[in-house]
Amino acid sequence: MTEPFAVVDVIRAKRDRDRLSNEQIDWVVDAYTRGVVADEQMSALLMAILLNGMSSPEIARWTAAMIASGERLDFSGLSRPTTDKHSTGGVGDKITLPLTPLVAACGAAVPQLSGRGLGHTGGTLDKLESIPGWRARLSNAEMAQQLEEVGGVICAAGEGLAPADRKMYALRDVTGTVEAVPLIASSIMSKKIAEGTGALVLDVKVGSGAFMKTEEQARVLAQTMVQLGADAGVNTVALLTAMSTPLGLTAGNALEVRESLEVLAGGGPPDVVELTLSLAQEMLETAGISADPEQALKDGRAMDAWNKMIAAQGGDPAAELPTAKHTHQVLAPADGVLTSLDAMAVGISAWRLGAGRSRKEDPVQAGAGVEMHAKPGAEVRAGQPLFTLHTDTPERFEQAIAALDGGYQIAPPGSRPEHQPLIIDRITAS
Amino acid sequence: MTEPFAVVDVIRAKRDRDRLSNEQIDWVVDAYTRGVVADEQMSALLMAILLNGMSSPEIARWTAAMIASGERLDFSGLSRPTTDKHSTGGVGDKITLPLTPLVAACGAAVPQLSGRGLGHTGGTLDKLESIPGWRARLSNAEMAQQLEEVGGVICAAGEGLAPADRKMYALRDVTGTVEAVPLIASSIMSKKIAEGTGALVLDVKVGSGAFMKTEEQARVLAQTMVQLGADAGVNTVALLTAMSTPLGLTAGNALEVRESLEVLAGGGPPDVVELTLSLAQEMLETAGISADPEQALKDGRAMDAWNKMIAAQGGDPAAELPTAKHTHQVLAPADGVLTSLDAMAVGISAWRLGAGRSRKEDPVQAGAGVEMHAKPGAEVRAGQPLFTLHTDTPERFEQAIAALDGGYQIAPPGSRPEHQPLIIDRITAS
Repeated sequence: MTEPFAVVDVIRAKRDRDRLSNEQIDWVVDAYTRGVVADEQMSALLMAILLNGMSSPEIARWTAAMIASGERLDFSGLSRPTTDKHSTGGVGDKITLPLTPLVAACGAAVPQLSGRGLGHTGGTLDKLESIPGWRARLSNAEMAQQLEEVGGVICAAGEGLAPADRKMYALRDVTGTVEAVPLIASSIMSKKIAEGTGALVLDVKVGSGAFMKTEEQARVLAQTMVQLGADAGVNTVALLTAMSTPLGLTAGNALEVRESLEVLAGGGPPDVVELTLSLAQEMLETAGISADPEQALKDGRAMDAWNKMIAAQGGDPAAELPTAKHTHQVLAPADGVLTSLDAMAVGISAWRLGAGRSRKEDPVQAGAGVEMHAKPGAEVRAGQPLFTLHTDTPERFEQAIAALDGGYQIAPPGSRPEHQPLIIDRITAS
Repeated sequence: MTEPFAVVDVIRAKRDRDRLSNEQIDWVVDAYTRGVVADEQMSALLMAILLNGMSSPEIARWTAAMIASGERLDFSGLSRPTTDKHSTGGVGDKITLPLTPLVAACGAAVPQLSGRGLGHTGGTLDKLESIPGWRARLSNAEMAQQLEEVGGVICAAGEGLAPADRKMYALRDVTGTVEAVPLIASSIMSKKIAEGTGALVLDVKVGSGAFMKTEEQARVLAQTMVQLGADAGVNTVALLTAMSTPLGLTAGNALEVRESLEVLAGGGPPDVVELTLSLAQEMLETAGISADPEQALKDGRAMDAWNKMIAAQGGDPAAELPTAKHTHQVLAPADGVLTSLDAMAVGISAWRLGAGRSRKEDPVQAGAGVEMHAKPGAEVRAGQPLFTLHTDTPERFEQAIAALDGGYQIAPPGSRPEHQPLIIDRITAS
């Protein structure tokens, strides 16, 4: 087969700040998937993209080429409208767990293809795998059937979706080319568009525990992704949400499932409830469904949908969740007011306790993680527990405790922490 | 072995415009040579260096690390002072051939480690290999002996010199990361410093046939290299010289040897003689030798040195040089004055005739090339030969003629071409 381009010319074009043509983009993504463009050539191109950027039409074409590298699911034959959510990842971000059955209970179909965790943020599949019997892998036919019958699926993305993205993501991870808006946006959106959802709500996190540290970066990423969704005919909205402090009171796998069940039972921490309801409202709107998600939490329909969803994937919703073999409490050193609790510190602590992994092939501990007993604004007394750390391997405590060191502040009694809204902004297509 | 750095951190540092530390540079060059840093990681780093640059101390350290990746020759035990020349490459640039024996005849030792050609510029070793029996490979001991006895050696660089540069150069070639001053300068200077010369004269070409198209680019490259030489204790000077039109009247392998012999015999084209004498003067000065190279050309001492140098490497200086099997003449279309003759056009034509190679493993034709019958400023008559093309494979004529099309201009009789000096500037360490 004769190739229409020389890859060095494509690399040079982006290096010299020229706009890549549609034909160049289609070819280079396809040729990389086929192995004609080598890893060392793609990594040079990715670094040039990271440093020189891409125009909106280039990003749209790049995304389309990644989608075209594999299969595209089609759920248009379902009796329910589809809508999905994607979060850019945060600490204690278990929102997918209560949100998916809640939105399903309100009449939508939610084809939530999720991943496993790497580094300080947990993975939705890791959390669900703490439920005895639950399995992450479904065939496309099983997925369609569950969407029709239950309305919600949380499962692993199949190998057939956007293989170019899978290969490129592994390369970006080892070549310092992860942190580029065009590459992040096209990676996320190619998978979400290929999964066949009709509508999409993006939860773009901002803050110390998030990938995007500033509101400005997060806004650019959100706008880019919303536009990519609109270009592909997927009704897309983004919320910018705060990720300076963890969501809820737990970071870990079974710990977060337990907290999600509290929310589905009508309780749970107020920030988790607020974000779950806000995202549910957005998802239902994008899918054209008028329903009251708060009512669906109260009257038990969301919990019913959860039980069906877990059971459909082999899980036992009534089974005891695993607990860690060892716990350690970190106590408040003084009376006062907790004025800050850093998401990154808690995320790293939970990771070190065994809740997360350093390499893709590492196992995770179902019971490990950090339980928080106070959130910013709370009054604390000297000697009161601030955190309970959970792990099966107690030699991990020392490093996990060290991660929390300096990760929270206690101000004199009567102080008030700076108030930060949980939902910072809402971004729609221009 | 535990590695002191994670390569992703080194890549990110340069990507984010931080200065690389000495330890990071030493490690990354060494780890790449050892295969611990993968090609796809080095190419991302090279692209970041190309786009974000390197400071002078970073370039100096990078060069030192490349030298340290292999052996460093030492000719300080010779009875003659060493001095060498490096040209950044041009069309018809056969200067090394007459220059090396000329400078040797004046009392210096010239350890000229050369390469083969790739693309439109020829390689010194390819030219010399057109001499029957001549061999490019010498052991270090043979090289030292020849330097002591004859004063001049032109041979292939051994595998042991700057292996990091060899590996990196092959990578840069396929990843669009050739055109960066820090990388070009460190590549050239690491090899020249490792070869053990005590002094060095750089011929940095500027113009259409050169790698550096503008005087500004060439000046930056020259200054960078002169400084690297000074930092390494090698007395280094650079000349910026014109490469808009070919040097001399031939571009090819045996064709250029023949022209070089004319220069050594006291004749030859004036531009080749001028540049040879200027570079010889600079080389002798950097080596602390007071001598008159013009006299050494006139009285036959340079030719004697040539004969000894060729014979020492197995060549027969009296042998007939090979000629191509087929020739084709390109005639002047009108009366007038040749006002321009583009070096790139001639270089590509000679390459297509078989004088150069497209890939490292291609063979070259000893007799192939372009003979020029007029240079800019010459009056020409309609029907007079402008070029004679030489090749063993006549099917190449069509493409070679096409390369010359538009590569020269004939203005009405009485016109004068714009005069451009051959030697544009002289750059010394600040």
